[in-house]
Amino acid sequence: MTVNYATPSPSQLQPVAGVRLGVAEAGIRKANRRDLTLIELAAGSRVAGVFTQNRFCAAPVQVCQQHLVGHDIRALLINTGIANAGTGEPGLAAARATCSAVAALMNLADRQVLPFSTGVIMEALPLKRIVAGLPACQAALRSDGQGWFDAAHAIMTTDTVAKAASQRVVIGGKNVNVTGIAKGAGMIKPNMATMLGFVATDAAVSQALLGRMVQQTAEASFNCISVDGDTSTNDSFILIATGAAGNSEIADELSDDYEALRDAVTTVAATLAQAIVRDGEGATKFIEIVVQGGADSAECKAVGYAIAHSPLVKTAFFASDPNLGRILAAIGNAAQAHASLQDLDVRTVRLWLGDTLVSEYGGRAASYHETDGVKAMSPAEIRIRVDLGRGEAQAKVWTCDLSYDYVKINADYRS
Amino acid sequence: MTVNYATPSPSQLQPVAGVRLGVAEAGIRKANRRDLTLIELAAGSRVAGVFTQNRFCAAPVQVCQQHLVGHDIRALLINTGIANAGTGEPGLAAARATCSAVAALMNLADRQVLPFSTGVIMEALPLKRIVAGLPACQAALRSDGQGWFDAAHAIMTTDTVAKAASQRVVIGGKNVNVTGIAKGAGMIKPNMATMLGFVATDAAVSQALLGRMVQQTAEASFNCISVDGDTSTNDSFILIATGAAGNSEIADELSDDYEALRDAVTTVAATLAQAIVRDGEGATKFIEIVVQGGADSAECKAVGYAIAHSPLVKTAFFASDPNLGRILAAIGNAAQAHASLQDLDVRTVRLWLGDTLVSEYGGRAASYHETDGVKAMSPAEIRIRVDLGRGEAQAKVWTCDLSYDYVKINADYRS
Repeated sequence: MTVNYATPSPSQLQPVAGVRLGVAEAGIRKANRRDLTLIELAAGSRVAGVFTQNRFCAAPVQVCQQHLVGHDIRALLINTGIANAGTGEPGLAAARATCSAVAALMNLADRQVLPFSTGVIMEALPLKRIVAGLPACQAALRSDGQGWFDAAHAIMTTDTVAKAASQRVVIGGKNVNVTGIAKGAGMIKPNMATMLGFVATDAAVSQALLGRMVQQTAEASFNCISVDGDTSTNDSFILIATGAAGNSEIADELSDDYEALRDAVTTVAATLAQAIVRDGEGATKFIEIVVQGGADSAECKAVGYAIAHSPLVKTAFFASDPNLGRILAAIGNAAQAHASLQDLDVRTVRLWLGDTLVSEYGGRAASYHETDGVKAMSPAEIRIRVDLGRGEAQAKVWTCDLSYDYVKINADYRS
Repeated sequence: MTVNYATPSPSQLQPVAGVRLGVAEAGIRKANRRDLTLIELAAGSRVAGVFTQNRFCAAPVQVCQQHLVGHDIRALLINTGIANAGTGEPGLAAARATCSAVAALMNLADRQVLPFSTGVIMEALPLKRIVAGLPACQAALRSDGQGWFDAAHAIMTTDTVAKAASQRVVIGGKNVNVTGIAKGAGMIKPNMATMLGFVATDAAVSQALLGRMVQQTAEASFNCISVDGDTSTNDSFILIATGAAGNSEIADELSDDYEALRDAVTTVAATLAQAIVRDGEGATKFIEIVVQGGADSAECKAVGYAIAHSPLVKTAFFASDPNLGRILAAIGNAAQAHASLQDLDVRTVRLWLGDTLVSEYGGRAASYHETDGVKAMSPAEIRIRVDLGRGEAQAKVWTCDLSYDYVKINADYRS
């Protein structure tokens, strides 16, 4: 599934019963900018998350992981401007202090609050200004689509468009809403780093299955995207289930209800993830890479990422140059990142660009003509398909091209 | 060791007794261009090599690996213009046919010839033109520095400077020469892909130790460099020992003679490797990354490569922007490529830019001021030092920055 993306209007964003959102200008790094977002969850809500694997993970990520152990989360606080990463022990203390301030304001325990930060690395969190901004956030709390719309804007850093999406689905005879927001991915927005994604549903789901669902849906959405191969210190994806829809709690992973909800959450998360790639720094093209015929999905994904991470492949797409040897070389390199591919027999590999068979038997396909390659590389939406010819598994990766503007944005970023 | 680089003059390149080189214009891809190089080795010469790990390795690489099993190599043939990679079974047959043609001309067995190709991927080798060019190569064979100088130029593709280096060393009372040539590294020069390196000495070394030496010296030279993280289909590094210097054969890896020769070969190979990085596409800065305090050298190298491969780090160096969080994030990401780093405690990591301590205890060093960072990032030669604080091992990686011109060169390359 690939979708074109435009930010929905507030009325297109379904409210999620049990979730209220409020934003404020706290002056964290720039004036006249909504940079603080509070999300309030009704009692009984369940929360699960997946986080960056980066060893230099940010202080708020560490605090989130600790607080999620206790469950019973009732509030999320998100600041932009400062990432609170690479800040050592003082950074951890600051992240905990923001939780305490929210807890005091909302009559919660500290461990019921999850903190999130995105922005510049290695600079201290302006704790006083954040605490001072909290009452305005609380006063602004609202449950309608406008609340989600405002939050989608307030968590942006160098994103050029706000990212939000909604789905409706019937589960156990009840109407269920799924709504989510996200901001710029991985190291797409390097120093103002971070992919943040928040998806909420009013369905009732057991805590154990919500934990499964956040991993499965991340694997099919945010874990499919790459802009430049870097993983930020702050990446977080949070899935919330308030249970307010009144369906009987989903507790069986093999049930139709679980599948229906997981599919709706996946659609929202994949839409957000693709919106992030489409908004990648300097991106002029959206590229879907489908890798099939692998021994398992992990090796398919490794091949997809090897293609997506290759600067040579990405610059060729920017130039609409069917320099297909670069894709073959990237496939051949995947073995260095993924041991199971060390016995990959390139004679079984086939490569398509759009519908055009480009390579088979380790060389150029007899039917391939370069004019077809040029035609296939010109659109703004491109599909690469690789068949490894050694199994039944598949995976997909979404990425963008590498343009002059990527260098410009990243070389000039802090100025 | 880092060295500035300028192509030596022919008189600065020591001849290696037992080696003759000849070049010719074969018109492989462009007219009026020396594109074919023949290297003749005296009887009794020993040859060892290391090759790309890319699973789409080129036909000549496969033939080299087969022919090296038999030893007794007497000739090397190198063509530019066409890489003979991604060419399937016909490509293998073409590579073998070039060996047969050289063997017929020089009265050798096919298996005594090693073929090398560099250039465009997925196009067929123009066998007739190569065979037709061989007599001119043979007629041009010469053993002096001019022969090496001409060969250094003839193996260039989009390199902007020819790369050659020489060392002299006394071994067992005999004067020994070590001379080498190389061309554009890894996927620096993407489609005209390929790092090729050829280093020869007139020292006598046992076949077993020559095999050790080529691996050790590659590890300290060509395996330390990265321009864009891609590995080409054709990368090859060949070490030749003719034995003509008359020293008693080096057969003990712990001997002073072995160490002296290995050091001389390493100096030549490292000079060539650094010259390749300095000539990287669009490179404006040369960056040495030293990683120490690791549990083993492999994890140190993984950290070095994680930094060297990060487009965010590379664009920051291009801009002389001390955006040091990007380096911390790259260090934290190395765990994804190298499992032993998954228990890396970032609180023990220290980071220096030049002589300036930038980060410790997981955050910004108290003594660090951004003005020092700007100063440290401005020179054309930059040294990053990382201490992982968990062992005694170390490794180094050489790389360059990422500029507008990298995108320009790679987007426009085939036009």
